Amino acid sequence: MLDYDLVQRELYTGVICDVLDSLGFPNQAMEADIRPVMPHLTLVGRARTALSVDVYEVLENCYEKEIAWVDDLQPGDVAVGCTNRSTRTGLWGELLSTASRARGARGAVMDGYMRDARRITDMGFPVFAAGMRPVDSRGRSVVLDYDVPIVCAGVSVRPGDIVFGDIDGVAIIPSEVAEETVARALEKVRREDESRAELQAGMYLRDVFAKYGVL
Amino acid sequence: MLDYDLVQRELYTGVICDVLDSLGFPNQAMEADIRPVMPHLTLVGRARTALSVDVYEVLENCYEKEIAWVDDLQPGDVAVGCTNRSTRTGLWGELLSTASRARGARGAVMDGYMRDARRITDMGFPVFAAGMRPVDSRGRSVVLDYDVPIVCAGVSVRPGDIVFGDIDGVAIIPSEVAEETVARALEKVRREDESRAELQAGMYLRDVFAKYGVL
Amino acid sequence: MLDYDLVQRELYTGVICDVLDSLGFPNQAMEADIRPVMPHLTLVGRARTALSVDVYEVLENCYEKEIAWVDDLQPGDVAVGCTNRSTRTGLWGELLSTASRARGARGAVMDGYMRDARRITDMGFPVFAAGMRPVDSRGRSVVLDYDVPIVCAGVSVRPGDIVFGDIDGVAIIPSEVAEETVARALEKVRREDESRAELQAGMYLRDVFAKYGVL
Amino acid sequence: MLDYDLVQRELYTGVICDVLDSLGFPNQAMEADIRPVMPHLTLVGRARTALSVDVYEVLENCYEKEIAWVDDLQPGDVAVGCTNRSTRTGLWGELLSTASRARGARGAVMDGYMRDARRITDMGFPVFAAGMRPVDSRGRSVVLDYDVPIVCAGVSVRPGDIVFGDIDGVAIIPSEVAEETVARALEKVRREDESRAELQAGMYLRDVFAKYGVL
Amino acid sequence: MLDYDLVQRELYTGVICDVLDSLGFPNQAMEADIRPVMPHLTLVGRARTALSVDVYEVLENCYEKEIAWVDDLQPGDVAVGCTNRSTRTGLWGELLSTASRARGARGAVMDGYMRDARRITDMGFPVFAAGMRPVDSRGRSVVLDYDVPIVCAGVSVRPGDIVFGDIDGVAIIPSEVAEETVARALEKVRREDESRAELQAGMYLRDVFAKYGVL
Amino acid sequence: MLDYDLVQRELYTGVICDVLDSLGFPNQAMEADIRPVMPHLTLVGRARTALSVDVYEVLENCYEKEIAWVDDLQPGDVAVGCTNRSTRTGLWGELLSTASRARGARGAVMDGYMRDARRITDMGFPVFAAGMRPVDSRGRSVVLDYDVPIVCAGVSVRPGDIVFGDIDGVAIIPSEVAEETVARALEKVRREDESRAELQAGMYLRDVFAKYGVL
Repeated sequence: MLDYDLVQRELYTGVICDVLDSLGFPNQAMEADIRPVMPHLTLVGRARTALSVDVYEVLENCYEKEIAWVDDLQPGDVAVGCTNRSTRTGLWGELLSTASRARGARGAVMDGYMRDARRITDMGFPVFAAGMRPVDSRGRSVVLDYDVPIVCAGVSVRPGDIVFGDIDGVAIIPSEVAEETVARALEKVRREDESRAELQAGMYLRDVFAKYGVL
Repeated sequence: MLDYDLVQRELYTGVICDVLDSLGFPNQAMEADIRPVMPHLTLVGRARTALSVDVYEVLENCYEKEIAWVDDLQPGDVAVGCTNRSTRTGLWGELLSTASRARGARGAVMDGYMRDARRITDMGFPVFAAGMRPVDSRGRSVVLDYDVPIVCAGVSVRPGDIVFGDIDGVAIIPSEVAEETVARALEKVRREDESRAELQAGMYLRDVFAKYGVL
Repeated sequence: MLDYDLVQRELYTGVICDVLDSLGFPNQAMEADIRPVMPHLTLVGRARTALSVDVYEVLENCYEKEIAWVDDLQPGDVAVGCTNRSTRTGLWGELLSTASRARGARGAVMDGYMRDARRITDMGFPVFAAGMRPVDSRGRSVVLDYDVPIVCAGVSVRPGDIVFGDIDGVAIIPSEVAEETVARALEKVRREDESRAELQAGMYLRDVFAKYGVL
Repeated sequence: MLDYDLVQRELYTGVICDVLDSLGFPNQAMEADIRPVMPHLTLVGRARTALSVDVYEVLENCYEKEIAWVDDLQPGDVAVGCTNRSTRTGLWGELLSTASRARGARGAVMDGYMRDARRITDMGFPVFAAGMRPVDSRGRSVVLDYDVPIVCAGVSVRPGDIVFGDIDGVAIIPSEVAEETVARALEKVRREDESRAELQAGMYLRDVFAKYGVL
Repeated sequence: MLDYDLVQRELYTGVICDVLDSLGFPNQAMEADIRPVMPHLTLVGRARTALSVDVYEVLENCYEKEIAWVDDLQPGDVAVGCTNRSTRTGLWGELLSTASRARGARGAVMDGYMRDARRITDMGFPVFAAGMRPVDSRGRSVVLDYDVPIVCAGVSVRPGDIVFGDIDGVAIIPSEVAEETVARALEKVRREDESRAELQAGMYLRDVFAKYGVL
Repeated sequence: MLDYDLVQRELYTGVICDVLDSLGFPNQAMEADIRPVMPHLTLVGRARTALSVDVYEVLENCYEKEIAWVDDLQPGDVAVGCTNRSTRTGLWGELLSTASRARGARGAVMDGYMRDARRITDMGFPVFAAGMRPVDSRGRSVVLDYDVPIVCAGVSVRPGDIVFGDIDGVAIIPSEVAEETVARALEKVRREDESRAELQAGMYLRDVFAKYGVL
């Protein structure tokens, strides 16, 4: 199993995407509008997906699946919500963040809007979203199901995939290549450190590329 | 009349939108691209609207209505500008902010672009806008009229409505329900504080929801 | 030749665009989604353009022109990249920033995505881009050529034009009016300082406008 | 009850929207991308709504509600589908058209894509949609429920509202003003015939407007 | 003065844009969503511009300038309307078409929506627009002024410029090069007829290009 | 090898996409804005791809690769052009259509704009494109290469894949499953004919679905 704290400390999305490219997974970076509320925080964990759909009336038990999703989060999990890119609803907020953290979750990623950014920032709970809008989901959307395959901001996410987010955005590591991706990425970081040192020392890019074979 | 300083200190857009939902006003949150220049500042005040329209020549007296709008601002007012979502013009900037503050205005909200963000930040004058672009309105747009009904980023705003903006975005409270909205919101904040404390103590979301009846 | 440090210290994009308007160049401000990674930094320098195009296979020598572009940067240059607004590729990143700075370049502007924002921030190297996405260009895009005319975020840029970027966005000063633009802008800043002082002292905008003839 | 054949023969969307404006219902025209497959056909009938939501797996019984919706259509009904503007799925097609017509339905309106346009044209069954894409809904979307309130291309539609579509687009007449709208529209058509005759005879628009009070 | 009927019969937008390119006017083709209601009709005439702006209340005399614009049209004119790309209002319709034709106008081009497409088709009056929406301008927009410079679907249009529209879209010929553009275009049509004949006879494109120097 | 004429006569995009879904290829339908110039024509053939990129100057030999692409077309080929969704250039037109047909090509598909729609219609040459704009590629774009992998309107296309277009849009059949797709589709058409007959006879959809297992 992955050591999330190590991964979070040592890696960054760029190197992860480069490794995923080399493993034949070029479509793992979410679209660029998914941004962290706190750009200095890195998020790593296991995806726990939910599919939210827009509705146009207040349904009975409208929070039922949403509550079950959050109450079922385990330590190391990251809540990943697909709203089908809704611009009406606000799927995530402070109470869900507080409840998630109480279950041991490490953060949340939404392809739609969140709210309560100030309190979430005070909590230091990493949330990535397409923006903020101060509305509740009641009468706007319901969680149809959780632990189901989704597409979040252009990337397929299955329960158990690894979520990695930082200031550059969010990448999804398919669970079957998670260990290999991390191992290769740790190695690539070392080589980039060497290239960087050479560049800082004034070496030309063409010579660094000739020497290390990577940019 | 509302105590703007109290409202600004105690409330946030999320709770205001929840209360407006419950009062039958579900469309009061502006679209998510209207963002504060200074995310830590909250803005509350009375809407003073203006309608700006794009033009394609330099008109004589092109600043006339714009100047009158700003010079007519009163203490407690918030300048709210509709540009019909123009991406050409820059309706708001530092000189207008300086002039507005001198009249006692509390801030400004635009559905288009502003400029001079650095100086406005230095002033600590809360401005919410769709983005920044360093251009003047001259030859690009004119204020057609002020104190008229507008739609700003998807929300109807009439002169005298209450503007509430913070890091999550901007909500408009129709003047006829302003007092009731604020009263209910202050009450809801207290209940959320209790829910939050229970969640932080490890209570499951389903139990908190069963107990308090709200998320 | 321009004193870039003076220009960077004394001017801001708003005044530059106003002067360019008055000189008959109204289309010099890039579209509003081109944002600085570090909003407090101002960028001034000579444009060194490159044209990047999206491809759908890994080309041999795919970095050749990109490397040549960066290795050929001179002190005072700003790398300006046109990706034709690609949302697939990440043209700029930390290694290119490190290499550019080693050549004396002052910053970079892209009409697409960059990555490695954290390290670039640590370097204090001013980069302006349409967003962040943690992907490499390999298999996604190639630099077709450099030192060619481009359109970057709606503005024509020729090699040798002057780039000016700050928190409000990016403006391009055509090389043939660079000296005049800067001279007039320095003068306009002084007049605006006077207007501002009068407004701060409580003078009405109509009177300030009547007295100074500018907003 | 409305005589749909009379309404279809005598009225057009423009006059209906004008009357709805005058009755205080200004938001009844769908967005302009909802177009008829057969522009010469007019569609009138009672809305039978369905809400379709995008999913990312093949669900068991994925056609259950969709089948029930269509099998439950009655003579005079129009199937109105909300896909939340999905660009992935194709909610409507020829088999559903054939089944709907067998039930007596008069047509269909979708805020997403349809397919099988050639056969539907051969049938002469009026379908209005946001476009065509030759994909099935299986594994892409499911009908969550039917006979529920929806928003279709920007307009609220409740079961029982009246749908009116022609070459200019689709308007929804709220059921409570259906009779009055039709009565006033028939009257307005007569007045417009008179204005038109005067204009054709060469009268100036200002004189026609002065005489009839309408454009 | 141009012989509009000759131009309409002999030329097409493609050859006009090629000639305008060669004369140094590369930005004369409107954006591609401006489409003819009747694709088989060609429109040529003198631009009579109007600037319409969105408003959010019913203004007194809201039709005043719109009526004056249409009543002032002269034989050979084409009404060209800028709505700043409004998706709310319907600026053009059948009564305006009838009135315009009565004045001798040859057609209309709008950067927004029109309505009454069926009757306008029956009239055979060439209208080009961004789409159809069956709403009136009352309470949605007003004509601010006419015979003013506008930008229509990305192209600058001044009163007196020549409008040329056909199935491929709309081009604007600046008045100062109108005669030269037409003369060169008539000549280019002849050369293209020769190239086409050679291609139809089976000659390779490279040989045709070598021989005629044009594609 | 496929009998293109048979495929063209018997099949339609909907049944092809259903079969491709069942074979595990769900992303083969192009985005919905790729429309046929002549909706009644079906296009089938072998993809010959080209990658066009936007440029901002007139390059020497700017037509070189474009000419080679077209001159190299073989009987049964379909020219498929990727412009990276350019809205500036017009990649395809009548002379290229004439030259292509002379080589035996069956049609063309572009993810950008075409021109000369009237003459192409007169020729009866099937072209599918994102729209029309009457501009040439000179100074706007160049063909970078041909017979290379591309993405066209959201679908990966490799040289030799099968293109199928009709009124519902364009689908790409990967070459390795072309024979199987066609065989299954011919079979599925027969079953749909039976379902249709039952529905036309008044059978309920639920019973048809129970009997045939497909919609």
